[in-house]
Order: sequence, then structure tokens, then C-alpha cells
Amino acid sequence: MRELTTVDLRDLALGATVLGTGGGGDPYIGRLLAERQLRSGRRIRVVSADELDADALVIPTSMMGAPTVIVEKLPSGTENVTALRALEARLGRTAAATMPVECGGVNSMIPLYMGALLDIPVVDADGMGRAFPELQMETFHIYGVSGSPMTVADDKGDAALFETGDNRRMEWLARGVTIRMGGASYVSMYPMTAAEVRRTAIPGTLGLAQAIGRTLREAREAHRDPFAALTEMLGSTIYRHGAVLFRGKVVDVERRTVEGFARGTATLESFTGTDRLQLTFQNEHLVARSDGEVRAIVPDLICTLDSETGMPVTTESLRYGMRITVYTISTPELMRTPSALETFGPAAFGLPDAYIPVEDLVNGDA
Amino acid sequence: MRELTTVDLRDLALGATVLGTGGGGDPYIGRLLAERQLRSGRRIRVVSADELDADALVIPTSMMGAPTVIVEKLPSGTENVTALRALEARLGRTAAATMPVECGGVNSMIPLYMGALLDIPVVDADGMGRAFPELQMETFHIYGVSGSPMTVADDKGDAALFETGDNRRMEWLARGVTIRMGGASYVSMYPMTAAEVRRTAIPGTLGLAQAIGRTLREAREAHRDPFAALTEMLGSTIYRHGAVLFRGKVVDVERRTVEGFARGTATLESFTGTDRLQLTFQNEHLVARSDGEVRAIVPDLICTLDSETGMPVTTESLRYGMRITVYTISTPELMRTPSALETFGPAAFGLPDAYIPVEDLVNGDA
Repeated sequence: MRELTTVDLRDLALGATVLGTGGGGDPYIGRLLAERQLRSGRRIRVVSADELDADALVIPTSMMGAPTVIVEKLPSGTENVTALRALEARLGRTAAATMPVECGGVNSMIPLYMGALLDIPVVDADGMGRAFPELQMETFHIYGVSGSPMTVADDKGDAALFETGDNRRMEWLARGVTIRMGGASYVSMYPMTAAEVRRTAIPGTLGLAQAIGRTLREAREAHRDPFAALTEMLGSTIYRHGAVLFRGKVVDVERRTVEGFARGTATLESFTGTDRLQLTFQNEHLVARSDGEVRAIVPDLICTLDSETGMPVTTESLRYGMRITVYTISTPELMRTPSALETFGPAAFGLPDAYIPVEDLVNGDA
Repeated sequence: MRELTTVDLRDLALGATVLGTGGGGDPYIGRLLAERQLRSGRRIRVVSADELDADALVIPTSMMGAPTVIVEKLPSGTENVTALRALEARLGRTAAATMPVECGGVNSMIPLYMGALLDIPVVDADGMGRAFPELQMETFHIYGVSGSPMTVADDKGDAALFETGDNRRMEWLARGVTIRMGGASYVSMYPMTAAEVRRTAIPGTLGLAQAIGRTLREAREAHRDPFAALTEMLGSTIYRHGAVLFRGKVVDVERRTVEGFARGTATLESFTGTDRLQLTFQNEHLVARSDGEVRAIVPDLICTLDSETGMPVTTESLRYGMRITVYTISTPELMRTPSALETFGPAAFGLPDAYIPVEDLVNGDA
């Protein structure tokens, strides 16, 4: 068990934005909610699943929908409590711990303030080790945990509970309600025992996000190359490989909102003007292509970072003329099994390409 | 307590179609489900709310969405059981009885087969004495009963439970899920005690639908004028006034589906060619106008019947050249209070007209 400090929270939020791979939502609002908990004297306790009793009930907490909405419609922090309490009432048990469903983006932060607010530990693990847009895109789903009963709540105190044997149906139905809740909702789903967390989750991903953030911060403070520092740090983690794929400036961005998702493409051109890289995204970057050839593809991580500062840049912030470094990270092995690729792989996003591990594709120049 | 026979069911379905005022959904499929219960030896017991203990739990059962969908996607009858059981689980109590939320259209039938299937009585009362398109359009809502907790279920075994203090929000959120369930869902809502039913429901509306159907059937069998028979019968009920508003043929129908509702207008021309009546509908007929003047308006009932047979004609069946008698029925007084008109009145449907009781407007010629 370790307690997070304000500095830890900031590192973690920064690293979670990198793992957000252009999407996932800015963790800023979530971080503020978590920091407010620390200032009011509460504690954020992070544990590994091994530290919990095997049958301890773990209920992940998260938000669903367009992260841009929460900037316009600030959550009070009680929406997730409403969702959690409704699920606890359904289960007839209270949560011994919470955890993230995705450590990328804003959903890295929500379990932290929930843990502080409710004085329960937060398990250092998640269901994807990055960010993904749909509720069934979870290792929990792939390895047999039911997403439902699940609950969603909104800022008006409304709550909905879903029961279905099909996690894709859960996504479909809960998305419909989330849209009608104003585009964002607060969710409790995939209730499971600590033993199931150990069996199905990607371990240590909160710590990993924090390490990424700390690495970038320290590189900046020491005037070191942030990308080289990142590659060195990742080498000893379950992600193993990080590499610079491309450096260039943004020459075109095309973006539209389709059924609550931000879809589009961004085109980068190298500083010599000779090479181009096209990024296709659905909230998160899905595939990077050069001359039509795949250079990196989901579920591997395609991150867009500011070339000078090493700060992550989300797809909604990408603008003409920005100098961007595209940095790829190999996804953990748990995300590359055939059943995992069915859920997270190119076909799951309607992409025609085969999955090839990014470390077999990239000629990194970092 | 009385038991319904197959003949009663057929009369009731026919009368419910009249009370459907052009919408409400054809009770045909629901009637078949109820008749199947009778054939398998089960009983449909209809009781008045007075026959139940004051604190007996009554859970109304119904369908929601486009009634046309259930013709294409036949319900098995278990969808409503899934919804009811999910609500009972939430309440920690089982239903002592069920009842309709609307006695017009298909929702007159669902509680009947549910009562037979589960061997519980069906309360002879409903929340509007006709058909209306939205979940908050209930006397239960108007007189202070919470619609939620409410549950919806679909033919795939999926269920959703909603909890909100606002019955309009319940409608909004449940409609979103219903659309994603394929356009139709099966609902348990407005759980209440028998005492609350007595205080808020319109009594005797199942019996009334049955009496309307029987009157039309007997008039046809006796070669009597069905409209005169109807007017005579209604005079001694809580509806008091029934009258022919217009006779003519359909010269124009304009119809479109908007957010799951059938909206449109139908224009009738008198046989002399001198008069026209325009009907505006949203699933149900909302207003009848002649030369721009309101001749009848919600919540009074505007029914379209075949001029020759006296059989009700739904808005989706209206076709050019059909000979139609427009028959109006005064709504019960419980539906005309200021708070009732806020929910059911012209403004609730976006109509600019004031409400005037139909018996003050009609120069009946029946």
C-alpha cells in the first residue's frame, strides 16, 4: 500500500494523458477533484490486488461519454457515488476497493477521488493499460467477467442500472442513456472479486502512468530528451518497447463527431517535407499509416506529444502547424491474445488492416 | 372480482382500440397472448382497487415504444416478466396485482396476460382512460406517484432499471434505451399501493373498454347504428358524452416518424364536399380542426371509426378514400383538472390552442 501525494497525482495525470493516446479525456478536472480530497485531509491509498482478500469486492468507477462535456458541466464528485451506491444496493454488498477501468485519460483519476472520498483503497491495475472508447473493451470482458449489473448516474441524481449477459449490449444500452444524460455519465461496472482482478486485469498501470509522468517531468527539469528517457524507462515495464515513430508538423486535421465519438484523421509532414504520416482516430489514435502502409495499429499505443516539451497532445488539440512527435508503445501481452485482438484489434474498429506488433514495424529513431 | 372469457377479451380489445384514439397500438398481438393464457387453463381475474388491501403492492405492466415493432418482433410474453421481476427485486416485494397504465390500445392487454401468467388479479383502472404516448402522461404522475423505480426489458433478456425523482426524466431516459432495444420494450413502472391506486387512477376503465367493444359488436349483430348505441351507452359512464363530430372520406394523409413517434395530419372531406376536418396526431389524435377552428382537442378523445362497420381505424391505417366517422368522447373529470391539463393538455403536445371541453364545442349529429 502506498499513499499518493499531490506531486504523484500530477505525474499520474500527465502519464495518463500519454496513455490516453490522443483521447481518453483530459484528466485535469479529475485531478482537481482528487487534489481537493487530499487538501481536505483524506488519503488516496493505492494497493495491488494481491494485498486484498481473494473474495473482497472490487467495483471499478469511471465516466462514460464525451470527456469534453465534463469541462462544460463540471461533475460534483457525487455522481460516481450515486452510481456506486446503486450498484452496491443491487449486489447487497459494499465495495472493499475501487479501481480504474482505463488508466488512460480522465478515467485514471476518478477512482482516486472515489477512493479518497469513500476511504477505500484503489487497486493499481486496469482493464486495458491505455484508453479505449467502448465499455466492452476491457480485459475483464475478454477474460470472462460480466460488465453488468452496471450503473450509470448523472448530475441530476438520476441513476440507471443495466443487467445483460452481453457486455456489448451493455455498451449499446448504456451509451443510449448516457447520450440522453447530456453526453456524459458516471459509471460503476464490472464488479468483481480481488481474485478476478488478479486473473483478468493489467497490473500496475496506475504506477506505470505515474512513472511515465515522472519521467517526462524529470527530463524537462533536467533538460534531457524526454523521448529517450521514456524509452529507457519503459524497457523495464510490461510495455517493454517505446519508440519515436515520426517527427513532423501537422498539415491537416479532419474531425467530426459521430454518435458521440470524435472521429477523424490528422496528417503530419516531416520537416524535410519528404515524408507524411496519417493518423486515424476514434477518440484515441487507432492507426498510423505512411504511404498507405501501416506503421502502428491498435491495440498498440500511438501517442502524440509536443516535440519540444514532450507534453501529450490530444486529438482535439491537434492544430495546423503544431510540431508533433508520434511515439509508439507496445501494448502488454495480455492485450495481444487472439481473444483480446477480437475486442481491441483493428477489426473491432472497422479497420481493414491486420494487427502487427509495433516493435516489428517501427524503425525507431529515438 | 370477475373472470374474463374469450368473448370478453375480444370486446375489450375492440373497445381499447376505440379508446386508443387512432394510436395506442393494435391490441391484436396482446389479445392473442392473453387468449393463449385462457386456453392453457389460466384465469384472468379483474378486481376493483377496493377489493385489495390498502397496502397491497400493485405494479402496472405495459409496453413502450412503437407498437408497430411488436408486430414484426413478436413478444414471447416473458419480456414483461423480466421487467416485473427486476422491479420486484429492487423493491424487495412481490406484486399482489397488476394493472394497465393505459386502457387504450395494446397496453390494455398486457396486464391481462401478465395477471393470468402470474396468477395475480388485474385492477380495473388505469392512468388516463385512453392512450397517450409518454410515460409521465398518467394520472398517477399528476397526483404524486413516482414512476420510478421502473424497469424495462427486451426480447434478449436485457433489463434496465431507472431511478429518478422526475417522471419526465424517466420518460426521456427510458425512451433512449427503448430505441436501442429495437424500438419497443416491456415496462414495469409506477409501483404503488392499492390505496394509491384508489386515490390516483381512473376507475373501471377496463370494464369501460369492454362495454364499448360489446356495444359495437351488439350493434353490428343487430344491424343498429353503432354510433347511436355508443352515445347511449357512454351517457351512464364517467365519460358521460359521446358524439359524432364529422362524417366524410379521407382526402389527404401526411405521416412521418419523428424520434420514435408517428406524427402527421389527416384531412377528411364531407360527402357534400363542403366541409373539411383536419386531424393532427402524435401516435394518437391530438386535435380536430375545421377552417382553423378547434372542434375537439386533447385530453378529450378523438376517435376515427369506419363509417359502415363502426370499427376503429388507427392513424397508420388511414388511407385515401376511406369513409370515416370522427367520434368524440369527453374525458373523465380527473383528466381535466389544471394539473392534469398541464400534463395531457394542448400545451403538453406543443399545440397553441386552449383546452375547451368537447361537449361545449361539438354540435353532434348522431
